[in-house]
Amino acid sequence: MAEVVPHRTIGRLTLYWRILRDLASEGKSSVYSHDLASKARVTAAQVRRDLMVLGYFGTPARGYDINKLIEHIEAFVFPTEEQRAVIAGVGNIGRALLKFFVGRRPNLKIVASLETNPEKFDRMIQGCPCHSIEDAPKVIREQGITVGIIAVPDKEAQYVADIFVDAGIRGILNFARTALHVPAGVYVEDIDLAMSMDRVAFFARQSLKSERPMSDKTNSVEPSKESYS
Amino acid sequence: MAEVVPHRTIGRLTLYWRILRDLASEGKSSVYSHDLASKARVTAAQVRRDLMVLGYFGTPARGYDINKLIEHIEAFVFPTEEQRAVIAGVGNIGRALLKFFVGRRPNLKIVASLETNPEKFDRMIQGCPCHSIEDAPKVIREQGITVGIIAVPDKEAQYVADIFVDAGIRGILNFARTALHVPAGVYVEDIDLAMSMDRVAFFARQSLKSERPMSDKTNSVEPSKESYS
Repeated sequence: MAEVVPHRTIGRLTLYWRILRDLASEGKSSVYSHDLASKARVTAAQVRRDLMVLGYFGTPARGYDINKLIEHIEAFVFPTEEQRAVIAGVGNIGRALLKFFVGRRPNLKIVASLETNPEKFDRMIQGCPCHSIEDAPKVIREQGITVGIIAVPDKEAQYVADIFVDAGIRGILNFARTALHVPAGVYVEDIDLAMSMDRVAFFARQSLKSERPMSDKTNSVEPSKESYS
Repeated sequence: MAEVVPHRTIGRLTLYWRILRDLASEGKSSVYSHDLASKARVTAAQVRRDLMVLGYFGTPARGYDINKLIEHIEAFVFPTEEQRAVIAGVGNIGRALLKFFVGRRPNLKIVASLETNPEKFDRMIQGCPCHSIEDAPKVIREQGITVGIIAVPDKEAQYVADIFVDAGIRGILNFARTALHVPAGVYVEDIDLAMSMDRVAFFARQSLKSERPMSDKTNSVEPSKESYS
């Protein structure tokens, strides 16, 4: 896979996948690009461009075959062989994530958790063995783990990221509010819950103050994240 | 507050706030825009532009006074009076969020949770009374709640969003993978955990396949989210 796929394309493909699964469960068998676009709140041209990376094309008369499109997206985006992940930090958020991700993708498995709290070592947490963070390099290398989730306090996040990267992890989902420094080639995606909540609260206040008329149902906000390397 | 502040500016201001608090706790009293920019991984010009909305300016010789800047950001971004939030859905993620947000901002309080599961009604969950979703309009209106968090299953999200909006909520933090339709003036921010994890896993595989040399420590990925209305 020499060609580079833009980060947002992957995000949209998984969104289309979700919408297509809903349509299939409603008994639908085909969809036009403009219908898919409307549900994903992007343009039809964007949908067609994104789906081109799959090498799958619909027919002008009947649109895309939903089941085939689901298969193509799964083959492209989801791991076709088992891919392993580890989570550092099993506090409230970490524990909720462990439970959230269990069984969500057949080939993407969180196989271990890491902690600094000795009371949690060598226990199973949400069906996942918990190790000392000091054993992380061994655990990651022996199990061929390539994805790491960081759910530790902010001040420990860079320390964990360094361990992750040194041990061979190439993708990090970071819940700490820390701008991680990682080498080129390692992908980091940040989820900053506090910042998101601050923004929502701010714009709720701004909306109340401006008291704009709520006139139509179209001007909603796109579910969209951008990461650039 | 007639002027409209771009969504990403608010995100960056809270990021600066976080960095400034770290600097203050290290005993520092002033910071130059380029130092702040480097830590936030944006340009110094961007920092100066963002801080201009606060009406606070540093001096060229000594930069910004850290404590004053913290105060200015807090006065601008955080609620100066109590602002109330509600969370719908107290499963694993909802419960973790309740605990995560408790006491994080003095004036931003989650005062109630909502559920469809009768076993959870009228109980305190993480110090927060849990009500039936059917009582949501009453709870939201009586308590003057303006912020709603959606942590319910995907298929129930639009139903909850409609209740929220009708009852007067103007900002929604949405953890369901559903493109919510809301009236103009209601701000929605989506956090899609599954999509983020899919992306991280995909780029980890892509990175391994391309086997790029890991030559420097600078080309990391920006913690950045974009929402457009």
